[in-house]
Amino acid sequence: MAHLLSTSCSIKLSSSHRPLSQPFRQCPTKCLTFFTLGTSKSPFKRFILQGGTQQASCVVRATVAPISQETPTQSSSDSRQNSSEPSKPKRVMVIGGDGYCGWATALHLSNKGYEVAIVDSLIRRLFDQQLGLDSLTPIASIHNRLRCWRSVTGKTIELYIGDICDFEFLSETFKSFEPDAVVHFGEQRSAPYSMIDRNRAVFTQHNNVIGTLNVLFAIKEFRDQCHLVKLGTMGEYGTPNIDIEEGYITITHNGRTDTLPFPKQASSFYHLSKVHDSNNIAFTCKAWGIRATDLNQGVVYGVRTDETEMHEELSNRLDYDGVFGTALNRFCVQAAVGHPLTVYGKGGQTRGYLDIRDTVQCVELAIANPAQPGEFRVFNQFTEQFSVNELASLVTKAGEKLGLDVKTISVPNPRVEAEEHYYNAKHTKLIELGLEPHLLSDSLLDSLLNFAIKFKDRVDTKQIMPSVSWKKIGVKPKTLAA
Amino acid sequence: MAHLLSTSCSIKLSSSHRPLSQPFRQCPTKCLTFFTLGTSKSPFKRFILQGGTQQASCVVRATVAPISQETPTQSSSDSRQNSSEPSKPKRVMVIGGDGYCGWATALHLSNKGYEVAIVDSLIRRLFDQQLGLDSLTPIASIHNRLRCWRSVTGKTIELYIGDICDFEFLSETFKSFEPDAVVHFGEQRSAPYSMIDRNRAVFTQHNNVIGTLNVLFAIKEFRDQCHLVKLGTMGEYGTPNIDIEEGYITITHNGRTDTLPFPKQASSFYHLSKVHDSNNIAFTCKAWGIRATDLNQGVVYGVRTDETEMHEELSNRLDYDGVFGTALNRFCVQAAVGHPLTVYGKGGQTRGYLDIRDTVQCVELAIANPAQPGEFRVFNQFTEQFSVNELASLVTKAGEKLGLDVKTISVPNPRVEAEEHYYNAKHTKLIELGLEPHLLSDSLLDSLLNFAIKFKDRVDTKQIMPSVSWKKIGVKPKTLAA
Repeated sequence: MAHLLSTSCSIKLSSSHRPLSQPFRQCPTKCLTFFTLGTSKSPFKRFILQGGTQQASCVVRATVAPISQETPTQSSSDSRQNSSEPSKPKRVMVIGGDGYCGWATALHLSNKGYEVAIVDSLIRRLFDQQLGLDSLTPIASIHNRLRCWRSVTGKTIELYIGDICDFEFLSETFKSFEPDAVVHFGEQRSAPYSMIDRNRAVFTQHNNVIGTLNVLFAIKEFRDQCHLVKLGTMGEYGTPNIDIEEGYITITHNGRTDTLPFPKQASSFYHLSKVHDSNNIAFTCKAWGIRATDLNQGVVYGVRTDETEMHEELSNRLDYDGVFGTALNRFCVQAAVGHPLTVYGKGGQTRGYLDIRDTVQCVELAIANPAQPGEFRVFNQFTEQFSVNELASLVTKAGEKLGLDVKTISVPNPRVEAEEHYYNAKHTKLIELGLEPHLLSDSLLDSLLNFAIKFKDRVDTKQIMPSVSWKKIGVKPKTLAA
Repeated sequence: MAHLLSTSCSIKLSSSHRPLSQPFRQCPTKCLTFFTLGTSKSPFKRFILQGGTQQASCVVRATVAPISQETPTQSSSDSRQNSSEPSKPKRVMVIGGDGYCGWATALHLSNKGYEVAIVDSLIRRLFDQQLGLDSLTPIASIHNRLRCWRSVTGKTIELYIGDICDFEFLSETFKSFEPDAVVHFGEQRSAPYSMIDRNRAVFTQHNNVIGTLNVLFAIKEFRDQCHLVKLGTMGEYGTPNIDIEEGYITITHNGRTDTLPFPKQASSFYHLSKVHDSNNIAFTCKAWGIRATDLNQGVVYGVRTDETEMHEELSNRLDYDGVFGTALNRFCVQAAVGHPLTVYGKGGQTRGYLDIRDTVQCVELAIANPAQPGEFRVFNQFTEQFSVNELASLVTKAGEKLGLDVKTISVPNPRVEAEEHYYNAKHTKLIELGLEPHLLSDSLLDSLLNFAIKFKDRVDTKQIMPSVSWKKIGVKPKTLAA
């Protein structure tokens, strides 16, 4: 017997205790959310609360339908009939689809006509609660986000709430949704988080490595032609004194030549977890014929994409804190509230960067042009290189145009990294597939700064300074009390 | 209040259900084993049985003393007073000291005058029980092994029984024993085991990666000058078409040069776990100043070492089965029982090999010549290269000399690996430190074959053929029923 739960369309924010600068506008149509739960024998998914695992997992297939729509949620069986042709992927599972890059990507793919399911444990929201952090932007619950998306566009995104480290849960999502492609953002993605204490270091490596192993086994078992699009990071490479190639390098040594995986030198337990993933995936491509694309992404900036702009309730998160905030986004928020820009150490640290509008474009390009069976394809996913000092300078200039008084300070580097180094990373493969980059421009910086100014009353300045030290990490659980 | 348990000196074998070819000789002196257990406030260790972890862990400090010896077990505080001088390491913790390489190493180090503690969960013995396997040689319980060692040599090896994935347990061992060096054999070490099913794949990576992370955190927290000697594997490198260097390779690329980690291409979840470990350790050397030596060991053969020869009850295990048995040992047992030598595929697979007497020698050399603070030192630990076909040919010839009729068959390769390839791996660094190799000789093969013949009544021929397929691994737990 299936149970039917309904909620009204009222907006519940994810437990921000700071005032919203303005309330969300109401969804354009009156909404009703159906969570359809049932037993494993029903066509819908079981509701599982298991003891003994790290995370209690809920297998929920939530379909979000405007109440004015008479027909039941459209079955996905139509598109599924095309899914035997792997060169025309239609059904995309976005693991981690409630996160910063995942949410923007899920909406973009849905907007482009893909059938999309989000798989997410929502643990990123829990991290905020536990660490006393919050997104600059108010974000709606995942349920309200999807209901709003349906209201605005008429498109349904399926939702499976659970932990991919729980293989039983993941299996059910595969059997139910039958993806042609899996985009895997579902990892703990902060280097500082992984360096807080031993527990978080172990959690990060366990969660990321075992979750990805489970995805590989699920593909092998249930959907062997499914294309894995895995989010890696440019940080896997470190900062070698030679040009960084896209995944592989041809080496001639003692008169012999081979093309081998590019040597990795990751510098946090998080970055290392991505290296482990890459190695595991490469092996399964060879051993099992998995088709995979590893997107070694640079630092993402920006918050708006075409889809999140459609309604306030679709807003993406924007992190500015010392744990989850990344360089450019953080600087814009600092400038908006009159906090000095915090350059770690000498500021010569150079990395690849990209606009979040290019993140979603790159993922779509990878899906639309899948890897071959057995191929482990690696793309470096960024559009421009900047040093931290260059970014600070750009934000200072853009802030001054808006009348802001922007100062920069150097703070002791909490990380262990080279602060002056050679850096030249190749990034041509996504361009060859058709990527049209949104390069960092004055207008983007204006937009991001204005966005930060709009929400500056929500900024908690206590979150800004780095609180995690690479050298001081210890074995005792660190409670970051207020 | 400390509790005192005692057992008599009677020999208990590790649950072999096959007849022993001969019973162990009695220990030379009447023995009494003391397991001294107490509360965390006592000078001895707590006895912990925790729920919720994968393995219930027992923190046991067992001291083994002949009953005729009037004095209490010698305190280790004397040698501990020297431990502030890291260049003269005296106290060595051998994690996984009940296993094949670990046991031989623990005895060798004890014999050479080091204060030795074994840390082991004994899970390797459980694997045998679960898979229906057994060592060719009867092996005594770890308690009886250590009691016998004490009886024969007068030397005490401390024992901590527990799982290093349980950080509370590991912390107690560090605080109690205060090692100058940690030799880390404590990992699931079989490639086929890691490819049995998803559970074993996940177990292998979790167990090995998290266990090693815990060791790194324990060193940082409790014993920051302690030298980590970590057993890696030559299998981390795979079979590149260029010479394999020892850990690092100098690459000139587009006119620039850097020395980078040698690219890895591991080909099982086990081998991958060792790659993950190497990357994690390298990072902590850089970030925390850990001193570490990664011993990328080749395939070990042989069973006898000077120390295990001293008494039958000190015998090492010898695995010949398709899961834990390695090439040369397996071939000798096959020859002894008239089973054809099982060459996987074409037999051109070439690897580095070494005698177990060189394993113990190499580990001692690494300990006696520790890495510098912050140094991640990599040695390729093997003495000769052979293809599988070459090994089969050597065993055939040696068997014929002993009157055995040795046949060889090619069986379908259960692994995914190149069967004909270039292979040239460097291995000079341990030689430079003083390694005097025991090269594979007729006399060693004679000895190993005679050893196998001696115990041939214990051979279970059902264990010989490969039962694990790299391609067929699935998600359902595989029960290897009789």
